[in-house]
Amino acid sequence: MKLWDKGLSIDKKIEQFTVGNDREIDIHIAKYDVIASKAHAKMLQSINIITTEELEQLLGGLDELAAQIEAGTFQIEESFEDVHSKIEFELTKSLGEVGKKIHTARSRNDQVLVALQLYFKEELKTIQDKTKTFFDTLIGLAETHKDALLPGYTHLQVAMPSSFGVWFSAYAELLIDDVYMLQAAQRVADQNPLGSAAGYGSSFPIDRELTTKEMGFSTLKYNVVAAQMSRGKSERTIAASLGSLANTLSRFAMDICLYNSQNFGFIAFPDELTTGSSIMPHKKNPDVFELIRGKCNKIQALQTEMVLITNNLPSGYHRDYQLLKENMIQALEDMKDILDIFNFSIAQVKVKEINLHDEKYKFLFTVDNINTLVVEGMSFRDAYKKIGGEVEAGTYVPDDSKKHTHLGSIHNLGLDSISEKFPKL
Amino acid sequence: MKLWDKGLSIDKKIEQFTVGNDREIDIHIAKYDVIASKAHAKMLQSINIITTEELEQLLGGLDELAAQIEAGTFQIEESFEDVHSKIEFELTKSLGEVGKKIHTARSRNDQVLVALQLYFKEELKTIQDKTKTFFDTLIGLAETHKDALLPGYTHLQVAMPSSFGVWFSAYAELLIDDVYMLQAAQRVADQNPLGSAAGYGSSFPIDRELTTKEMGFSTLKYNVVAAQMSRGKSERTIAASLGSLANTLSRFAMDICLYNSQNFGFIAFPDELTTGSSIMPHKKNPDVFELIRGKCNKIQALQTEMVLITNNLPSGYHRDYQLLKENMIQALEDMKDILDIFNFSIAQVKVKEINLHDEKYKFLFTVDNINTLVVEGMSFRDAYKKIGGEVEAGTYVPDDSKKHTHLGSIHNLGLDSISEKFPKL
Amino acid sequence: MKLWDKGLSIDKKIEQFTVGNDREIDIHIAKYDVIASKAHAKMLQSINIITTEELEQLLGGLDELAAQIEAGTFQIEESFEDVHSKIEFELTKSLGEVGKKIHTARSRNDQVLVALQLYFKEELKTIQDKTKTFFDTLIGLAETHKDALLPGYTHLQVAMPSSFGVWFSAYAELLIDDVYMLQAAQRVADQNPLGSAAGYGSSFPIDRELTTKEMGFSTLKYNVVAAQMSRGKSERTIAASLGSLANTLSRFAMDICLYNSQNFGFIAFPDELTTGSSIMPHKKNPDVFELIRGKCNKIQALQTEMVLITNNLPSGYHRDYQLLKENMIQALEDMKDILDIFNFSIAQVKVKEINLHDEKYKFLFTVDNINTLVVEGMSFRDAYKKIGGEVEAGTYVPDDSKKHTHLGSIHNLGLDSISEKFPKL
Amino acid sequence: MKLWDKGLSIDKKIEQFTVGNDREIDIHIAKYDVIASKAHAKMLQSINIITTEELEQLLGGLDELAAQIEAGTFQIEESFEDVHSKIEFELTKSLGEVGKKIHTARSRNDQVLVALQLYFKEELKTIQDKTKTFFDTLIGLAETHKDALLPGYTHLQVAMPSSFGVWFSAYAELLIDDVYMLQAAQRVADQNPLGSAAGYGSSFPIDRELTTKEMGFSTLKYNVVAAQMSRGKSERTIAASLGSLANTLSRFAMDICLYNSQNFGFIAFPDELTTGSSIMPHKKNPDVFELIRGKCNKIQALQTEMVLITNNLPSGYHRDYQLLKENMIQALEDMKDILDIFNFSIAQVKVKEINLHDEKYKFLFTVDNINTLVVEGMSFRDAYKKIGGEVEAGTYVPDDSKKHTHLGSIHNLGLDSISEKFPKL
Repeated sequence: MKLWDKGLSIDKKIEQFTVGNDREIDIHIAKYDVIASKAHAKMLQSINIITTEELEQLLGGLDELAAQIEAGTFQIEESFEDVHSKIEFELTKSLGEVGKKIHTARSRNDQVLVALQLYFKEELKTIQDKTKTFFDTLIGLAETHKDALLPGYTHLQVAMPSSFGVWFSAYAELLIDDVYMLQAAQRVADQNPLGSAAGYGSSFPIDRELTTKEMGFSTLKYNVVAAQMSRGKSERTIAASLGSLANTLSRFAMDICLYNSQNFGFIAFPDELTTGSSIMPHKKNPDVFELIRGKCNKIQALQTEMVLITNNLPSGYHRDYQLLKENMIQALEDMKDILDIFNFSIAQVKVKEINLHDEKYKFLFTVDNINTLVVEGMSFRDAYKKIGGEVEAGTYVPDDSKKHTHLGSIHNLGLDSISEKFPKL
Repeated sequence: MKLWDKGLSIDKKIEQFTVGNDREIDIHIAKYDVIASKAHAKMLQSINIITTEELEQLLGGLDELAAQIEAGTFQIEESFEDVHSKIEFELTKSLGEVGKKIHTARSRNDQVLVALQLYFKEELKTIQDKTKTFFDTLIGLAETHKDALLPGYTHLQVAMPSSFGVWFSAYAELLIDDVYMLQAAQRVADQNPLGSAAGYGSSFPIDRELTTKEMGFSTLKYNVVAAQMSRGKSERTIAASLGSLANTLSRFAMDICLYNSQNFGFIAFPDELTTGSSIMPHKKNPDVFELIRGKCNKIQALQTEMVLITNNLPSGYHRDYQLLKENMIQALEDMKDILDIFNFSIAQVKVKEINLHDEKYKFLFTVDNINTLVVEGMSFRDAYKKIGGEVEAGTYVPDDSKKHTHLGSIHNLGLDSISEKFPKL
Repeated sequence: MKLWDKGLSIDKKIEQFTVGNDREIDIHIAKYDVIASKAHAKMLQSINIITTEELEQLLGGLDELAAQIEAGTFQIEESFEDVHSKIEFELTKSLGEVGKKIHTARSRNDQVLVALQLYFKEELKTIQDKTKTFFDTLIGLAETHKDALLPGYTHLQVAMPSSFGVWFSAYAELLIDDVYMLQAAQRVADQNPLGSAAGYGSSFPIDRELTTKEMGFSTLKYNVVAAQMSRGKSERTIAASLGSLANTLSRFAMDICLYNSQNFGFIAFPDELTTGSSIMPHKKNPDVFELIRGKCNKIQALQTEMVLITNNLPSGYHRDYQLLKENMIQALEDMKDILDIFNFSIAQVKVKEINLHDEKYKFLFTVDNINTLVVEGMSFRDAYKKIGGEVEAGTYVPDDSKKHTHLGSIHNLGLDSISEKFPKL
Repeated sequence: MKLWDKGLSIDKKIEQFTVGNDREIDIHIAKYDVIASKAHAKMLQSINIITTEELEQLLGGLDELAAQIEAGTFQIEESFEDVHSKIEFELTKSLGEVGKKIHTARSRNDQVLVALQLYFKEELKTIQDKTKTFFDTLIGLAETHKDALLPGYTHLQVAMPSSFGVWFSAYAELLIDDVYMLQAAQRVADQNPLGSAAGYGSSFPIDRELTTKEMGFSTLKYNVVAAQMSRGKSERTIAASLGSLANTLSRFAMDICLYNSQNFGFIAFPDELTTGSSIMPHKKNPDVFELIRGKCNKIQALQTEMVLITNNLPSGYHRDYQLLKENMIQALEDMKDILDIFNFSIAQVKVKEINLHDEKYKFLFTVDNINTLVVEGMSFRDAYKKIGGEVEAGTYVPDDSKKHTHLGSIHNLGLDSISEKFPKL
């Protein structure tokens, strides 16, 4: 009787089901498993569980693996379940019994956990750096195009005058909020869980402060159960912070796709950044920006996945947590690409000249007309009625002479203040 | 022909549809609309749009409304669309033309926005305070019950020894991560959007730094479009941070419901905190904790709602944003109740004595047995095999004498370190 | 010591926390509790637990309550926890001991459950009817405006010719998919759970087929545990089906808001359906459609809430389920309003004449030009190159003479086929 | 200046960004692209766009590709963007100009769409079949273990007697609800979109009814814009239906993990289905069921992703839709595995004997005691008080003699009725 579709044996099918694609995913955390293993080895020597010589051997073996990882030659073969068994195997192969000793006073649980925390910390740092680069690009574009006017919309209806300077620096300033969130996520990740073992600590007299210092964590997750529950907590927090950034980027990409439409015609991009159609020879589609939007929307959904996998589970490790890795790591990798691509692409934007005297834009200035009357002494309500009457009667003449001078407005963008507000990274 | 189900006129039905239940919701932000209006009035006087006398009149009128709000006598009648039109009406009724002048150089958009930011700031502060109270309760419980042992589980299987001290302080320490997120949300809310008007600023020479200082905001949202886009950004961020806290509370409540089951029997609660059944006379159900869990799970879903309402909308105000208010405000109100109720209830917990020598718990100590052998010189793998063999053969005798001494473990909870880690509020 | 913010007693605060706003919500299911109670009473008589006389008394009392509910005079006072205790109280007040007997062989659990299933069935039926009305309106608009051309977009770029006929009937046809989902939800709701008691049935010899028939359910949820787990299952399913419909409506509303923008200018609405601005006298904002969009997006988030409240809970009733009611019932009520308002409003649409010879639209016809060449014998690739070259060189002349004749295209909308496809309700 | 992290050229990086991992994903739909291409070719011949000879050549070429796909030798090399360009290339390579002709009157858009719809239809069919297999297994287990009693819980508190028969058949019956949803999704997928081209149809006189029949679709998506908008609609609907099924499976897995805990000890599994621990020699963890639970929870999050990628996008194709494929296809593949593994594993369950006279279970029978008194003539309220008093006083003696005889209860499971209710597939 064939039990499974593809003739696999039961054992093989169950193995595939439980291992999933951990081997591919784990390549991203291999580097950090080595770093944590080195710190753990140093600690074991400091409490005399291994000798100085054994430590040297372990460090040597681990450095060799680190070199392979750096060089891109490190591989996790089919015979290993994950990166951790692979590394343990290699150490034992080259060092014998000593290689096994590194597993003393730790469990697979805290080993995975600490590698993930180190990975997350590093990735969040990189993403913040790339966000800063993108921020600077936008501030630069705002400065360059500060005099180029743009219709401002509310309810997608022509509303009041805006400018490319306002538009670019708006998204720059919103990125600052996202950095607040990324920094909160980094604080969550920047806590050493090593020593929590299977989630209830160890009866060995391990020195968790030593490993904390060795790995450069700012603090410990002291409580062992809390440390174990970082699994999930970190992922949810990071997903929330990536989602925040993704929302800003996605909505910026939406504006770009809209402003690039013939019906707006505010911006254009060079041909390298647009894509043709298989049937329409005239098409220059903004696929890059649509994919930024789509990928960012996908990242915004990640939070729900991280919550659903972990929610309502009692405390203590559950195998379900293994499933947090795949899309979390994918999202971090994607976000770095998105920021690179967006930063490169937006720099190529061509800002078009917009004729604000076009019939469809003429009511942009009604509020300025009203304000002129108010400054001349008329009450706002009366001025509103007068200009409203002119609009209705078709006699309205736009007053496009007024400057907007207050901080943060068209003619006073406050780019320096915004730049100063960007948090120290 | 009857167009609508309940015989309403079209106008009435459309009005209901557009106004929704804003009147009820807006009661929560009335106080902050008055605060912002006072700041705006002072600023208008400072740039000579109103006179010192007019300012005094306005401040007097606003203080009177503040007193009504404080006293709980302020009401938004059916004839008003929202709190803002109500306040404008009251000022105009009592002060005449002067009352209307306060609307100069602001729009309904930034008026709502600034009131919401002030409300959010205050609520997030309160929630952090209540979280600290709950944290202290848990640390206190951990100290009280630090010697009471508890089976630790992984995969819901009996794993290693834990304790009530570990359990209570685990959730305490996890709250710290949630405070990081709440603080990030507060930084997002703590920026003055007033002056952005309909989202494109104003041609009046308004002084946004003055209003920022008056209202006690730490900084401005400088860019007017960014300020307008705070609508949604704040809500998403707050929902993410409340969701983070809710996840911790929900999972704690899950543990409680489980440990309160007869099959665990680890804890109990006094009758006032349990509920009977309409058909089973023996039932003492932990409804309070189930509702904490359920309400927290509901709050975790809020993020998706906030994202979906705002996602893929181009920049500029859309009426959709009105819909962000209802469940956001409800969640903030609920979270305060949850924290109060949870803090009160957990303090009533009765920790039961658990017989760790019961048959089902005896393997809790296998790792300790192994570690003893390792300390005596056996390799971990050999010790693991030896004890595993005893388990298999039924000859295993638990060694429950070992102390766990490292930082964060059963016999060294590190409560002081955890308390120090709690951020300054 | 004041334990709570507002000076409430502990008991009062806990009561508020556990009862929530069930009293207001339950008004919607009062009618169905009466229907189910009547069926239950008849069944009790049939198995001789109550007498024929007692049955008559109970039916009389219940009919009186039904009349109050119908008349809108039925109220659930503060002294009752929910609609079920209110009804039990009223029956006992008027009938004495007999009033209590109706609670024999049922539990609060299956009492709530059956009332909800009846309510859901009815609401889903109403929503399908209103969807059909909206469908018919759209088919009518498609017929009316079948000759009015519209630019078709891909990637928000001008692509190929479309028409108002295509646009209106596209959304009509998509509604059919939503009805498939609504019907699946209705099948889930259309199963009698009464008799499952607290989730494990009863030792009374109740006749569940009799109550099934009495209440007009198509079938039973036979298994008592499955019946109890309908709580949540129904809600998730309904949320998914409402979300499906909401997605169609929301995206249609998005199109409307965009096409109503000055930059598209394809449609307009009478002033009653637009809203002014407090500072811009020229504004006619499409608030109704923005609120349709926003409310539909909110409804799309409901599924996540329903899942999160119930997920990872072991089988058996949990008090968390009480929290499913509020937003579920709100969504059903909102959806009915949305369909009414959308149906009324779209009928007022003014379709504008669009000049497809405007410079920005001229490439709409490139594919038609190519197809002409293909029909004349040129290969598609060569024709594509030729027309592409003309576009590049600025020599392209649109060929807007071609008819699109295949089923479902501009000049052959297939409205009859689409109408026939709409499922029988 | 190095623009990108890994020294990639800009073009390469943008290509990677836009193509993603479509090559790997598309292997799943290759078979269906061939089926649809054959139907399209036949139609082109029927309207004389290609000759009978050309048709034969095309069908021959396509059959050859089909054979490669079937044999698993078909590959999409790096030089192709997706499966569609690969197939077009192969046809052109072997057939020359004729190979290109198949692209007449279709666009990449409807080509992808129709292949996806065919793939979805087939997968949904397979998943329903596997659900039926699982259903039958559960019904079989219910029959086998119908006399084995189990405590029933409400609020996780010991409540009333249940049985393994009730438990197994409860999940069986819930699967029926999921099949209703799967069938709705299948109706959505079972509509031919071919001919919609880029979303606005074609000026060629194509015969869409012919292709509908050829491919075995039940009906057309008539309207070309509606057909294009199936992209997203199908995915959302399928995600909702998979989520429904996943919820049932996930909660069943939760029960299993709980019942397998030493504190419940209701069931066990053979060693092949449990996993050891790297540090605890006694552990036999139910990883398979935890991964079923986790994977099902992940699938429940898919709906949010599908909604977020598509929401608030105006009508007409957007490149974002490409991103729907990856996790959708993954979820379908995962679900098939989950059903296979769950079906195999649950069949290995060992049902343990539970001593219902254990102290902690003794109140299971209070309702039965009460009912006995009621049948003897006491009113329910008096009987409730009497038994409640005995419970309180410690004099309660359980009456475990009563049979539950009504349909769907312990001693009358109604398995035949449940089996009959399962929809025809």
